[in-house]
Amino acid sequence: MRNYILLGLIIHLWLLRLLCSAAEFDTPDERTASYWMKQAQQQLAERLARTRHLTDNRVAKNIVFLLGDGLSITTVTAARILKGQRMGHSGEESRLAVENFTYAGLSKTYCTDSQTADSACTATAYMSGVKTNMGAIGQSASGEHVEPITLWAQRAGKATGIVTTTRLTHASPAGAYAHVPRRSQELDIARQLLEQEPGRQFHVILGGGLGKFASERSDGRNLIQQWHDAHPGGCFVRSLSELQACRVGNGSVLGVFNDNHMAYHLAAPKDQPRLCDMTKAAIEHLSAASPNGYYVFIEGGRIDHGHHETRAGYALDETLEFDAAVETAARLTDEQDTLIVATSDHSHTLSLAGYAKRGTSILGQDDSNRDTNGVPYSILNYAVGKWQSLNKAGKRENPGPHLRETSFTPSYIRGKTGVHAGEDVAVFAQGPQAHLFSGIMEQNLLPHLMSYAACLGDGTTVCQKQRREQLSLNATAENPNKTSKLVPAGA
Amino acid sequence: MRNYILLGLIIHLWLLRLLCSAAEFDTPDERTASYWMKQAQQQLAERLARTRHLTDNRVAKNIVFLLGDGLSITTVTAARILKGQRMGHSGEESRLAVENFTYAGLSKTYCTDSQTADSACTATAYMSGVKTNMGAIGQSASGEHVEPITLWAQRAGKATGIVTTTRLTHASPAGAYAHVPRRSQELDIARQLLEQEPGRQFHVILGGGLGKFASERSDGRNLIQQWHDAHPGGCFVRSLSELQACRVGNGSVLGVFNDNHMAYHLAAPKDQPRLCDMTKAAIEHLSAASPNGYYVFIEGGRIDHGHHETRAGYALDETLEFDAAVETAARLTDEQDTLIVATSDHSHTLSLAGYAKRGTSILGQDDSNRDTNGVPYSILNYAVGKWQSLNKAGKRENPGPHLRETSFTPSYIRGKTGVHAGEDVAVFAQGPQAHLFSGIMEQNLLPHLMSYAACLGDGTTVCQKQRREQLSLNATAENPNKTSKLVPAGA
Repeated sequence: MRNYILLGLIIHLWLLRLLCSAAEFDTPDERTASYWMKQAQQQLAERLARTRHLTDNRVAKNIVFLLGDGLSITTVTAARILKGQRMGHSGEESRLAVENFTYAGLSKTYCTDSQTADSACTATAYMSGVKTNMGAIGQSASGEHVEPITLWAQRAGKATGIVTTTRLTHASPAGAYAHVPRRSQELDIARQLLEQEPGRQFHVILGGGLGKFASERSDGRNLIQQWHDAHPGGCFVRSLSELQACRVGNGSVLGVFNDNHMAYHLAAPKDQPRLCDMTKAAIEHLSAASPNGYYVFIEGGRIDHGHHETRAGYALDETLEFDAAVETAARLTDEQDTLIVATSDHSHTLSLAGYAKRGTSILGQDDSNRDTNGVPYSILNYAVGKWQSLNKAGKRENPGPHLRETSFTPSYIRGKTGVHAGEDVAVFAQGPQAHLFSGIMEQNLLPHLMSYAACLGDGTTVCQKQRREQLSLNATAENPNKTSKLVPAGA
Repeated sequence: MRNYILLGLIIHLWLLRLLCSAAEFDTPDERTASYWMKQAQQQLAERLARTRHLTDNRVAKNIVFLLGDGLSITTVTAARILKGQRMGHSGEESRLAVENFTYAGLSKTYCTDSQTADSACTATAYMSGVKTNMGAIGQSASGEHVEPITLWAQRAGKATGIVTTTRLTHASPAGAYAHVPRRSQELDIARQLLEQEPGRQFHVILGGGLGKFASERSDGRNLIQQWHDAHPGGCFVRSLSELQACRVGNGSVLGVFNDNHMAYHLAAPKDQPRLCDMTKAAIEHLSAASPNGYYVFIEGGRIDHGHHETRAGYALDETLEFDAAVETAARLTDEQDTLIVATSDHSHTLSLAGYAKRGTSILGQDDSNRDTNGVPYSILNYAVGKWQSLNKAGKRENPGPHLRETSFTPSYIRGKTGVHAGEDVAVFAQGPQAHLFSGIMEQNLLPHLMSYAACLGDGTTVCQKQRREQLSLNATAENPNKTSKLVPAGA
C-alpha cells in the first residue's frame, strides 16, 4: 500500500513538473542560448532574402542604441501630443525625433517564462540576442552565460559606453555587461561593471546609483577608488559642470550623478545632467576614443518609473527627455556611418481613451468623455496602479479638468505599483541597414541586426556580402565573359 | 448703453469662435483638402530622399488594402497569442500572417477636430489622402468633395472592389465611394454606392447591410433590382455557396450576406462566407476583370464591434478572421507585382496587463496577478466599457480563471459602449515599394504611397522615376562619355 502511495506521489510530481515546464516554455529548446541565436539568424536570413531587391551596402561604423524603458506606443503618442502642447499647438500633429527616422517596426517582448516581460530578461534579449527568464541578466534560461554586443564591439576594436538615468546597476544597463540569475544582485553587478569584461573596458559610464559602488557595500570595497587607481588619466564626475569640464581625449569617463536613480527631470537639481547632456558627452568622448567607431547604450530609464508610480506626467516628461536625447544623437552623428536604433523593452497599461477634441490637454479630460453617471473621465488611464480613481463608496471620482504634470493619473485595479503590459513595442531606426529594422521582430533579433550592420560577432554581416561582391567583381575583371555567373547581391 | 451691450456680445461671440476653432484645428489650413494633399506629398518626397540608397523600381500592378477596424497593437499581440494557444502552443511566439511582411510602420490617426478618431474621418484619410472631421466621409473639414483612390485606380484602367463584414454602407467601406457630411446618412450612401462614380463601376461588392438597399428605404427604391437591371450578366449572391457558384469572368458580383452587419464569425450561420472566402472570391474576380490590375479594399469590420461590446473574445476571433484574409491575399498574389498593405483605422482601450506566465490563456487570468486585496485580475482589461468588473459595493469582482471567448471582458469606467483610443496603429506592407510604408506616418499618407507604387493619381509616382531613368539611359547610349551626368536614382 505504501508503495502505491509512493508511486502515485512520484507520478504526481512528474506530471506537475511536465505541466509546469509546458506552461513556461513553448519548447524545451527555449532554455538554451543556441535556440535563440539560431532563431535570430534564421530571421535575419529571411529579412535579407526579402529585401534582396534593395541595395544598401553601407557599414555602420558607429551604433547608438537608445532604450526608453517602458516606452509603450501609447506613451509615444501621448508624449508627442504633450510636446506639441508645450509649444502652444494642438499637439497631435507634433513630431518626436524618431519620426524623422524612415524605418520602424514592432518588437515582441515576451520572455522564456513570461507573457509580459521585466527589464532584465528583455535586456538580455536586446543586448545578447537570447531570450531568458524574468529577472535573469546575461544568461540563458538554462544558465549559460551569453555575451553582450558590447563585447562583440570591443573585439572589433570599437569604443563602448553606457548611459542611463537609473542606477548603473539596474536591470537595463546591467544587460550590457553583467551575468546574474537575479537582477536584485546589484552589489555583484557593480563589481562586474568595474572589474570584469566588457564593463571594465567601457570608455564612458554615466548614470546614477553611487551607493552600490561604495556606501551600500558590505564587503568594504570602494569600487570608485579602484576605478580611479586603474584610470589615472580618466575623469570621475558628479555633476553637469564636472562632466562638461572633462576634456575629450583624456581617457575614460565615469559619471555618477546620484546615490540612487538620478532625479526625475521634473524634480532634478540644476547641476544634474539631462539625458541629452550625457548623450552629447558620450558621443564626443567615444568618437575620440577609437578610429574604429563605437557602440553606445543610452537609456531613458525613468519613463518606466513614472508609469509604475501611476503618474503619466512624469512618464511623458521623461519620454520628452528621451526624445531630446534621440534628437541630440541624430544631430551629432552622420547617417552615412552611424546606425541609430531607438526602442523600448516592454509596455505599460496606459490607454488614451475617448473622443476628445483636437488640442485637449493630454493630461486632462474632455467634457464629451463621460461615464453613464455623467462624470467626466480623463484621457489617460492605467488599468493597474497605486492611485485609485474610486472613492470608498466605490464611485469613480472626477480627477478634475486640470491635472498637473506631477499629479497622479487614474487607475482602476489597485496594485502596490503599476504593472507592465505585454503588447509589442516600437523600434525606430536610421542609418546603414536601417531598413532591416522593420516588420515584426522578436526582441532578441535586435543585436543580430546591429551586428549585421556593423560587422560584429560570429553571425552573418554586411561585410561578408561586400567581400562576396568584391570577389565576383574581381573574377569578372579577370574573365569579363563570365558576367552571367555573378553572385547576386544579397544572396 | 444698448450699443455697448451689443458690441460686448459681438466681441464675446468672436472670441468664442476663435477659441473653438483653435481647439479644433492646429492651423486653419487643416480645413482644406489641399493642406493634406501637399503635406502628404512632402512626406512622400522626404521618404524618397531618405531611401535614395535603396533600389526598388517595381510597379504595383495590383493593390490589396486590408483594414482591421479597431485593430490596436494590443489586439495584434493578443490575437497572435490566441492563434498559438488554439494550436496548443504557449502562444506568445506564434506568428500572424502580417509577420511575414518585411515592412511595418505606425500611423497617426487623429482627425482635424478630434484627438481620437472615428471610422469615418479615418476612412477619408486612408482612401482620399485628406484628414477631415469626425463623421465626415469623402469631404474635407471645409466641405470640399475629395476623390478616393478607387477612382484614381479606375482612371488607370484598373478593376476595383470592396469587401467588408459590416454593412456595405458603414463608415469604413463608404470611404471608398461616398461623399456625406454625416456617416449616419446610410440610405444616401447606399444610392451613392450603386448609382454614382466610382461605386457603380465596382466589379466586386461583398458585405452586409441589405436593409439599406431595399427594405429600410423610405423612397420606395429597390437598389438591388436596379443593380440587377444594370448588370444582366452579373451575380447577385446571398450565401457562400452562391458566391462560390458565381463563375469568374461573368461580370460584376454583388454579394449581400445579411440584412444588417454580417454575423460575427463565432455566431455565423454555416452558409455565411468568411472574410477569407470573400477575399479569395474578390481577388479571383478582379484578376480576371482587367489586364491592368486591380485595387481592392478588404475590411475586418467587426473587430471594432467586439471591442465596443467589451468582449475581447469576439474582437480577437474577428482579428484571426482578418489574419486568415491577409494570409489568403498573400497566397493568391505575387509579391513582385502586388502591393499588400494591412492596417487599422484607430485603436481601442484594451490593455494586456501584469506578469502572467508563458502560455497563460490570453482570455483568462494568472494567479500571480492580484490586486492589493488579493483578488486576481484578468490579463485583458478595457479602460471604458459596457460591462463592469465592480459590484454594487464598488468592490472589484474576480472574473474567474476560465473566461470563454464569448464572455465579457472587465472594464472600469462604465460607458454605454467601449470607446476608441488615440495611440498610433500599425501598418504592415509587402510588395513593390513596400519599404516606403515604414517609420511613423500620418494616416492620410497611405493612399499617396499606394498611388506612388501603382502609378495612380496626380502626385509623384515610381513610373515618373522609371521614365527619368530611361531617358538618362538613352542619353548615355547616345553619348557614352556623359555617364557622370546621369540623373541619380530616386532624385
